[in-house]
Parts: sequence; structure tokens; C-alpha cells
Amino acid sequence: MANYLQMWKDLGMDIENHDNLCAVLPTAFGDTYLSQENRPAAMDFWDMVVADIHGIRPAELIEEQKKGRKVFGTFCVYVPDEVVLAADGIVTGLCGGSQFWVPDGEAVLPKSTCPLIKASVGARLGKTCPFFRIADMYVGETTCDGKKKAWEILGKDVPMHIMDMPQMKRPKDYDKWVEEIKEFAKVVEELTGNEITRDKLENAIKIINAKRKAIERVYQARKADKLPISGKDVLLMTQIAFFDDPERCATMCNKLADELEQRIKDGVSVFPEGTKRIMVSGTPMAIPNWKLHHIIETSGAAVVCEETCTGTRYFENLVEEGKTTLEEQYRAIAERYMGINCACFTPNTGRIDDIIRLAKEYKVDGVIDVNLKFCCLYDTEGKSVEEALKENGIPVLGIETDYTDSDAQQLRTRIEAFVEMLG
Amino acid sequence: MANYLQMWKDLGMDIENHDNLCAVLPTAFGDTYLSQENRPAAMDFWDMVVADIHGIRPAELIEEQKKGRKVFGTFCVYVPDEVVLAADGIVTGLCGGSQFWVPDGEAVLPKSTCPLIKASVGARLGKTCPFFRIADMYVGETTCDGKKKAWEILGKDVPMHIMDMPQMKRPKDYDKWVEEIKEFAKVVEELTGNEITRDKLENAIKIINAKRKAIERVYQARKADKLPISGKDVLLMTQIAFFDDPERCATMCNKLADELEQRIKDGVSVFPEGTKRIMVSGTPMAIPNWKLHHIIETSGAAVVCEETCTGTRYFENLVEEGKTTLEEQYRAIAERYMGINCACFTPNTGRIDDIIRLAKEYKVDGVIDVNLKFCCLYDTEGKSVEEALKENGIPVLGIETDYTDSDAQQLRTRIEAFVEMLG
Repeated sequence: MANYLQMWKDLGMDIENHDNLCAVLPTAFGDTYLSQENRPAAMDFWDMVVADIHGIRPAELIEEQKKGRKVFGTFCVYVPDEVVLAADGIVTGLCGGSQFWVPDGEAVLPKSTCPLIKASVGARLGKTCPFFRIADMYVGETTCDGKKKAWEILGKDVPMHIMDMPQMKRPKDYDKWVEEIKEFAKVVEELTGNEITRDKLENAIKIINAKRKAIERVYQARKADKLPISGKDVLLMTQIAFFDDPERCATMCNKLADELEQRIKDGVSVFPEGTKRIMVSGTPMAIPNWKLHHIIETSGAAVVCEETCTGTRYFENLVEEGKTTLEEQYRAIAERYMGINCACFTPNTGRIDDIIRLAKEYKVDGVIDVNLKFCCLYDTEGKSVEEALKENGIPVLGIETDYTDSDAQQLRTRIEAFVEMLG
Repeated sequence: MANYLQMWKDLGMDIENHDNLCAVLPTAFGDTYLSQENRPAAMDFWDMVVADIHGIRPAELIEEQKKGRKVFGTFCVYVPDEVVLAADGIVTGLCGGSQFWVPDGEAVLPKSTCPLIKASVGARLGKTCPFFRIADMYVGETTCDGKKKAWEILGKDVPMHIMDMPQMKRPKDYDKWVEEIKEFAKVVEELTGNEITRDKLENAIKIINAKRKAIERVYQARKADKLPISGKDVLLMTQIAFFDDPERCATMCNKLADELEQRIKDGVSVFPEGTKRIMVSGTPMAIPNWKLHHIIETSGAAVVCEETCTGTRYFENLVEEGKTTLEEQYRAIAERYMGINCACFTPNTGRIDDIIRLAKEYKVDGVIDVNLKFCCLYDTEGKSVEEALKENGIPVLGIETDYTDSDAQQLRTRIEAFVEMLG
């Protein structure tokens, strides 16, 4: 990755510390991913992206910035990419999936904050994430206590726009979210210098919908009895979707889906027959957090679906196309995003319905409901999730974990016992 | 307290478990309160209320219910009492200040939930709080993650209305809060069967304002160089204000203020000259949580002000009176409540301003910024509070605690060292 050294220096990154990160990632990736057998050939693309995760895409973003485009760094599936894209802006995810960044986050945040937020803040303050350095603006939302307070730290030295999520889902909350999206659109227009028109927004809606459809095709392939792809590989695809150009993302996901559909026709599977089918529900898994999937898929089971923000919550439901006015388009966008069932809402019964539906659609043998340590929202909701699954006769294992390896052996023991019990 | 046994039985309470609570409270109160010397005579009222905390006021509420009045149980200083009172309803606080209730809460909530929420849910589910049993409706708000999810548990068997707090303080958030208050008013009208008119609301605004002014008079007396009252006693007065009839509360607080003002004239103090003046900032202290005040005031210092929800956030600022329409009144109410600076907002710089202002007004020697364990909001904000205080040359000690006694000795050591350092 040495050829990006000058770029990282120009970005004001902490090169020495960043080198430490670069030194461990390839081994982690090799152990987790490259050890898999019979992977779809189309995964080559994502392997290549990960190999230079802080190089290839950051370099592209900088090239686009030179042409005058603006980069918006986002943290959450509720921020509407369509609006940014319609103003010729670029959306990128921000780092937050590694224990590497946690200590720098803990320097300013309570230890009892979830690892995702601690890692994000640490990646920013430690200057070891190029995406944080590149973004012209961060876009936050008021989804949880930890993030609400994190914005006050992150917004100190970079322009920050915060969208106030309604905390409920009454009709007036939809109206409110429409207003938040329109206000965001104004901010985006101002920063990019580009007006959002009905046609540009329509085009953006189509591009993002196409990306969603492509990801969904890959997910559809996981409903097959013979699984053509591992859960780990799909997780990687989704994680990188947050960072990639949406059109390239769609192309690559469709290419992968083509291969998976052929595999299904050919009866090719990456798992032995009878492998137990697991759905993971709960908190998001930001790259490079592959911990739970790796443990599950080396414990005699396969992950066939993720009811998470790095799973179905990211791509399910489309924005309705073909609206004739901006006002109607903003409402269509609001409706699609308010359809995401995050535990930040009260009540959030729609999520229980989603989990039961997905468990059936993906023919799962059991659900592992995972909570990132100190995520009060998903942790509390976990109780209702477990109750609902039991009522529906679906075995469930509730676990809590963080980014460290200290609980890996204990998790493996519990997950192996759970999988065995499914037999 | 035996004469209330039938009432508790009629309320469906867990008598046996409740007896355990009743058995420990008098000792705790005696040790903490009655051991103080030279207390204002007017404190007799609050001593009497505490002695029968689950008897006197619950019996009154039940009497009022027999006359057809409805009781609204609330958890938070953002719920506008004025609206309930205008419809001839009654507002009561709900239990949540004792470790006694925590285990029952932990049966359904994550351990890493703040003790206030765990205790509230435990008091409800364990059937050991008469106020939870009496309330015809609970009124929640979306101020923090823990509470948002707690409503889903508490709302299972009692009517629950939730007000969606804006999470920011832009002009449109004030508009939104007006709408939430108007919606709440409709719910209150429906449950009570009483219409809210301009004149009734004006009367209610005046009653609640009078209560605030009376509490403020007591606080004003704490600005005197010779302190006429302990912080513990004022905390008790404020804690009980959440449960009491607002007119009686005002009468009693004014009577206490009369006595304190006379004491100031007479140069009477409950602390030796030179006692260090401490402001406590941070999370609320629900009755019977007197832990921190007791430690501070038996460590050579006095608490002169609480920048908490059981302190200045409860009574500061009045609702503007004399508005001519309901619409204007609801806006005036919204403006007063949005003036409260809770850490649930982002950003919340107004709270820093409050703390610096109060520290000067009350001539404090130091601030103890306290966080109830696992309150992510105040914990994270604590860092900005400490920085701001240091910039203003005001010594600050940040502490985190819960309802248990296990850290009492350690806290005492730290607080004694802090007070000594102020010398």
C-alpha cells in the first residue's frame, strides 16, 4: 500500500499509527476470508477493494474532489443517499468497525459507549481513517444517545449537519421526516453549489434503487437450499456498499448475483448438505467486523440472512419512482426510509414482524440475536425479539459482544452448542 | 404504616415485598435526615410526608379518583403539568430512586441500563410502588434510549401516552413541541372528560408558576453566605414536589422560604463558617436517593445548588402568563419547557452556560458533576462540562455512581480529598 503514502500524508493522517492498522488487516482478512473454499469468482472485486481499503476508494474520492465534487461522510442507513447524489455529491461511509480505533475513542467517550461509536470517534480523532479526513461534511442523525453526543465531538472541526430523526412513527412523524430531508437537500445544494431538480433526483432515486435491487438479488440467492455463497462474503459485499460508487456497486453485485444464480442451477454450494441455516439479527457490523460471522461459519453453520443495518435494513424497500414533483419525491424518499425498523423508534413492533418474515423467507433453522455491547436500544429490544421468535417456534440465541477477541472462545462454545441443539 | 394495608391490598400491591421496603426506609431517613442539627422547623412537613410516603399521598389520590379525577404518572420534567391540571387531572411522579427496585428491573432490562430506569420498571413490575398502581395513565417522552424502550414494557398493561421530544432546538423543533403539547392536551381531555379552555389553562399556568416561584425562593436563600438550610433538605423538598399537590407544595415551600429568609436576617446557619460550597450537576436524584448529598454534607462541605432535574431544571423559567388564546398559551408552555437544557438534546451548549451562571450565582467553591451509571448522555457531556468549568477557573470533580452502597467509602474518600483541595 506504499504508493498511497503521499496521499495519506497530504490528508494529515497519523502515518505511523495507520501503519500499525495496515499491518494487521491483511492477516485478519486472509484468515477470515481467503481461507474459505470454492468462493464465487466475482468476490475477487471485493477482495481487491479490501486489500487497498484505505487507498483505492480514497484516491478516487480525492480525484472527484479535484473536479469540484463534494464528499459527504455518513454513519447511518437513515441518511438518504439520493439527495446527495442528485446534487452530484458523493456519499461515503466512515470507519468504525475495528478495535484498533476504540482506545482513541475511549479517550473522550465513556467506556460504556458502544464500540461502533467509540471506534468512529477514535478513527476521527486518531487521524487513522482517510474517509474522515476526506469528507467535506459529516451527516449525523439523532438515532441514539451515543451518536447524539458524538456529533458534538466530531462537529468541532468539520462541518456537520444533523438530521433530527423522529423517535416514533405516527403520520406526523413522516411529515417531519419529509421536512428534515428537504432541509438536508438545501444544505447539500449549498455545499455542492448544485441545484437539485426533479429530473436529477429521479435519476438519483433510480441509481440507488438499482443498487438496492442488485444487493437484493444476492440475498435472494441465499434463499436456495444449496447455499451458493457464505454469509461472510455477503457481509463483506454489503459493508463495502457503504463506501463504493453506487453504480459500480450495482454492477458488481449483479455480476455476483449472476454467478450465484448459475451456481444454484448447477447445484453448487459452499457448505456441506445439512449445514444449519442461521439468521443474524441486531446491531450493525461495520467493516472489518467479521467476528461473529466467522465464528458461526466455522462452527458448523451458515449465515443466510442479516436483519441488521449492514443487511436487510440497508436495501429492503425501494423509493417509489416516477413522481412528478420534488415535493412528491421527497415524500417518497421519506416513506422508504421511515420503513426501516431500527430499535431507535418506540414502539418498534415492525422489526419483530420483519424478523419473523425473514426467518421464514430464508428458511432459517435458528436466529442469533446479537448486541454490540452497550447498545441499550437493541439490547433492551432483544427480549421482545427472543419472545417473539420462541412464540413462533424458531430457536434463538441472544449474545452480546464487542470488537475484542477476548470472548471469541466463549462465543464459539455457545454457538457450537446452539448449532448442535438445532440438529 | 399499618393503616394503609387495606389500600395497598386493594391496589394489588405485593404486600410482603413492600413490607421489606417499608422496613428499611425509616432507618435510612433517620440516619440521613433526622441526624442533622438545627433544621428549619418547616421541614416537619416533608419529614411527615416521607414517613408515610406510600400512604398519605396515595390515599389522597384515591380519594380524588373517587370524585372522578384522573391521575397521570410522569417520569420527566418535560411533561407539562399545566395541561393536566387545566383538565382537572392530577400529576404524580413515579417511584425510581431506590436500589430496592433495581433487581426487578434487571429481570427485564439490560444490567447496563441506568438505575433510575431499572428502578422505575422494577417498581412497576414488582408491584411495590402505589403511584404506579394508582395512575390512570403513564406519560412518557423520548428523551433517552433507555426510557424509549422502557415504555414498551411499561405500556403493556396501563394506558401510555408518549410525547416525542425533539432532539434539537431549532425554531422548527419549538413548533414541533407545540404540536406534541396540543396532542397531549387532546389525550388529557379525552381521559378526564374535561375540556381545556383558555381560562382553565391560564389558571393552571399560574398555579404551576407559583410552585416554581416558591421553590426558587428556597433556592435563593441558598445564595446567602451563611447557609440557612442543608442541601439534603432542599433536595428532599424538590423530590417531593414531583408527587405533591402543586398548591400545597407552593404553600409549604413559601413557608420554608419565610423561615429561611428570617434565618438569613438573624445570621443563623446550619453549617460552620468556612464550609465549602458545592454545586452538584448532572443526572436526577429521585426519592429516596440522598446518597451523594449525604456524603458531601458529612465530608466538610455543603450543597448549595443542584443543576439537575431534581434541582434548577425543575423550576427555572416560568411559562409566560396572560396569553389570550389557547394557541398562544400552548406556545408559551412549549417555550418554557424547551428552555430546559437536558443532555438529551444535541447540541446542548445551553447547559454549559447554565452551569457557569449557577456556579457564580451560588458562589460555589467547586462543582461535583455526577453521572448515574450507564447514563450515556450525561456521562459523555460530562467531559464538556469539566472542560468549561476548568476554563472558568472553577474546580470540578466528575463522579459516576449508582444506587448501591458499595462505592460509598470510595466516594467519600474522593469527595473529602476534593473538598480539602478547595481549601
